[in-house]
Amino acid sequence: MQESVQIGLLGCGTVGSGVLSILNANGDRISARAGASIRIRRIAVRDVRRQRSVPVEPELLTADPWEVVRDPAIEIVVEVIGGVHPALELIRAALESGKSVVTANKEVLAKHGPELLELAARRGVDLLFEGSVAGGIPIIKPLRESLAANRIKAIVGIINGTTNYMLTRMSREGIPFEEALRKAQELGYAEADPTSDVEGYDAAFKIAILAALAFETPVQVSDVYCEGITRITPEDIRYGQELGYAVKLLAIAREDGGRLDVRVHPAFIPQSHPLAAVQDVFNAIYVRGDAVGELMFYGRGAGSLPTGSAVVADLIDAVRRRRSGNGHFRVSGEALAVRPIEETVSRYYVSLKVVDQPGVLASIAAAFGEEGVSIGSVIQKGRLEDPVDLVFVTHEVKEEYIRRALEKIGRLPVVRYVSNVIRVEADV
Amino acid sequence: MQESVQIGLLGCGTVGSGVLSILNANGDRISARAGASIRIRRIAVRDVRRQRSVPVEPELLTADPWEVVRDPAIEIVVEVIGGVHPALELIRAALESGKSVVTANKEVLAKHGPELLELAARRGVDLLFEGSVAGGIPIIKPLRESLAANRIKAIVGIINGTTNYMLTRMSREGIPFEEALRKAQELGYAEADPTSDVEGYDAAFKIAILAALAFETPVQVSDVYCEGITRITPEDIRYGQELGYAVKLLAIAREDGGRLDVRVHPAFIPQSHPLAAVQDVFNAIYVRGDAVGELMFYGRGAGSLPTGSAVVADLIDAVRRRRSGNGHFRVSGEALAVRPIEETVSRYYVSLKVVDQPGVLASIAAAFGEEGVSIGSVIQKGRLEDPVDLVFVTHEVKEEYIRRALEKIGRLPVVRYVSNVIRVEADV
Repeated sequence: MQESVQIGLLGCGTVGSGVLSILNANGDRISARAGASIRIRRIAVRDVRRQRSVPVEPELLTADPWEVVRDPAIEIVVEVIGGVHPALELIRAALESGKSVVTANKEVLAKHGPELLELAARRGVDLLFEGSVAGGIPIIKPLRESLAANRIKAIVGIINGTTNYMLTRMSREGIPFEEALRKAQELGYAEADPTSDVEGYDAAFKIAILAALAFETPVQVSDVYCEGITRITPEDIRYGQELGYAVKLLAIAREDGGRLDVRVHPAFIPQSHPLAAVQDVFNAIYVRGDAVGELMFYGRGAGSLPTGSAVVADLIDAVRRRRSGNGHFRVSGEALAVRPIEETVSRYYVSLKVVDQPGVLASIAAAFGEEGVSIGSVIQKGRLEDPVDLVFVTHEVKEEYIRRALEKIGRLPVVRYVSNVIRVEADV
Repeated sequence: MQESVQIGLLGCGTVGSGVLSILNANGDRISARAGASIRIRRIAVRDVRRQRSVPVEPELLTADPWEVVRDPAIEIVVEVIGGVHPALELIRAALESGKSVVTANKEVLAKHGPELLELAARRGVDLLFEGSVAGGIPIIKPLRESLAANRIKAIVGIINGTTNYMLTRMSREGIPFEEALRKAQELGYAEADPTSDVEGYDAAFKIAILAALAFETPVQVSDVYCEGITRITPEDIRYGQELGYAVKLLAIAREDGGRLDVRVHPAFIPQSHPLAAVQDVFNAIYVRGDAVGELMFYGRGAGSLPTGSAVVADLIDAVRRRRSGNGHFRVSGEALAVRPIEETVSRYYVSLKVVDQPGVLASIAAAFGEEGVSIGSVIQKGRLEDPVDLVFVTHEVKEEYIRRALEKIGRLPVVRYVSNVIRVEADV
């Protein structure tokens, strides 16, 4: 039987319930990867009677977070309360008593990260915080480990989903800031008091954390120059577009001549830049290293399950490191069968060279129909030439059927030849 | 004094010399992060007398790779020879004798990965292979660790830079396959025999590795359906563009109903998809997980330093795991000073509301000039209105100067007000 490890959870809001959902859904897999069975022993919440979005055994709940931190059976504390107090004191106490801590708390990390990391190192335990920046996007660990061969030169991030959503709508629809904010609030992307997002403070906490890690230097949040998006107008965006730019709220940390630029402000970037393609609530972090060159990490920067994904990954690491286990991914026994290509389903682009005469389209469409292939769009081009191009995009269909249809179509007298077939991956 | 660890290097071609360059440039930093001083003890090369792009002490060189693998002082072997033989036998022997192995060899991993991973696990050593897929882009470790909370649903990658470069040029310039190939060969992106790239075999090795990891299932390379880009024509690309698509060589691994689709083929994807923005030799891997949602990892998929970056990161991990060290990144003492915003340098978008009369542009341009701000572009709009918009984009200038210029410009009688100032980050 697998050994088990007891976890204490501080907070059961958006992120906390994401963590519990993931442990419910993928628990066996997660325990296998951790090398020990992960057991939630206690959950501290503000109101133990509140209805929750995820099923929780009532006897796990307590209103006193100190009960969790002081429980000697708990080896790892997951802090997802947010804010500085009492999170700071709880994390400190947990580390002091030899527990590892996983947190998604950007503010406490940005303001007290160095002190807490030092405490963790002194006590020989882990303080992990992948969830504190950019939700589900792996960035803390890649910076600390995957890029450890590099001298990092710059980090440029779109790390606030709310403002990126607003700027996307302002850019697409020409609406002003206030209207974009209202829409973001209606969708739950912006809070009733949106100050922390729209003034850039949220991004400032996150870039302070990234800058400290990437440049191995303490960065005070108060040193981060911070300017929000409240003054951006539809006219500015339109002029920018004319000049070939897209507007983004950027969080920048860049080393230049032995000094560090760390700032958050709206900026125009070339429309061809990968960051310009980051739309809606998505986040992305662009990194330049002396060896690796340019990298970008893109994904969902917030939300219950994405942030929960980062927190649970840290939890798995914390367990593995406490057990020096080697749970890890492995190429296991229970194999998935590979589906033969004939049985895969796709949409298909089909280009034909055909004789230009009445009824051609009808006879080809009939042949598709007979083999169960239905057509999404057709392009017919090049009158006056012979042969002319006829291009179809099908709806989703099994490869087998399209092959059969094309064999039949290739034999039609009006068809010179099938010039190409290319799969269309419309929802990659 | 720091403990040291002896490394044997097999191969000193593109990737091998990248590894040596990085160790030369960032050696102290790398040793600190590894928790032990990294020493190259022996380098096996085909021709010991050949001139190399990176300085190598001649006494380290040997023409016999077995000498490296059998050296008992060597703890970690870095294999960057490529191909199956003799790489497979060398890796096996190294693992058997208790050495950890770092490799960038996609072919040996795709064909013999499960066997080698099992051998490594049995011997309690590491087999790490971040460099084998997508060069410098961290993807193996994120899949194994950062996404360990997820059930992976799909991986869709642009993981062959040569073909992506060719398709980019074909799409931009309407040139045919043969011409794109010639250009790729001229630039050294394609080899004299381009078969492995253009037929998709290179991508097939890589997706076999990713699929095996992500779905924890053995995947035979021969099970990967593989179709190259040789039949893609400029006409197809143009029709696709009309339909709103971009063409890419995709490597796909997707679970669906308990079976696995693993395939490499050209495909049309919507132009708005993040993968469509991946241009030239860049690679990207799009991942969908049940918790994290959509992620994309973007960067340089090949090259001496980018791949070297991945190999050295693995090397650091291998050292740390052998020493159970905690070298790691830390927020160190030697702090970098944060530059005050006034001293930062940027380009600026400046929009003004001005009186529409002759000489306005001249007087504003003069004010910019007096404060050392030089102008890149100007947009003047809205004749017949009062006030009219006047928009400038400056060349690079210190924030301090732009502030001084704007103060002066704000006081000009022809200027109603400065409506906005937005930084332009043209080379993010």
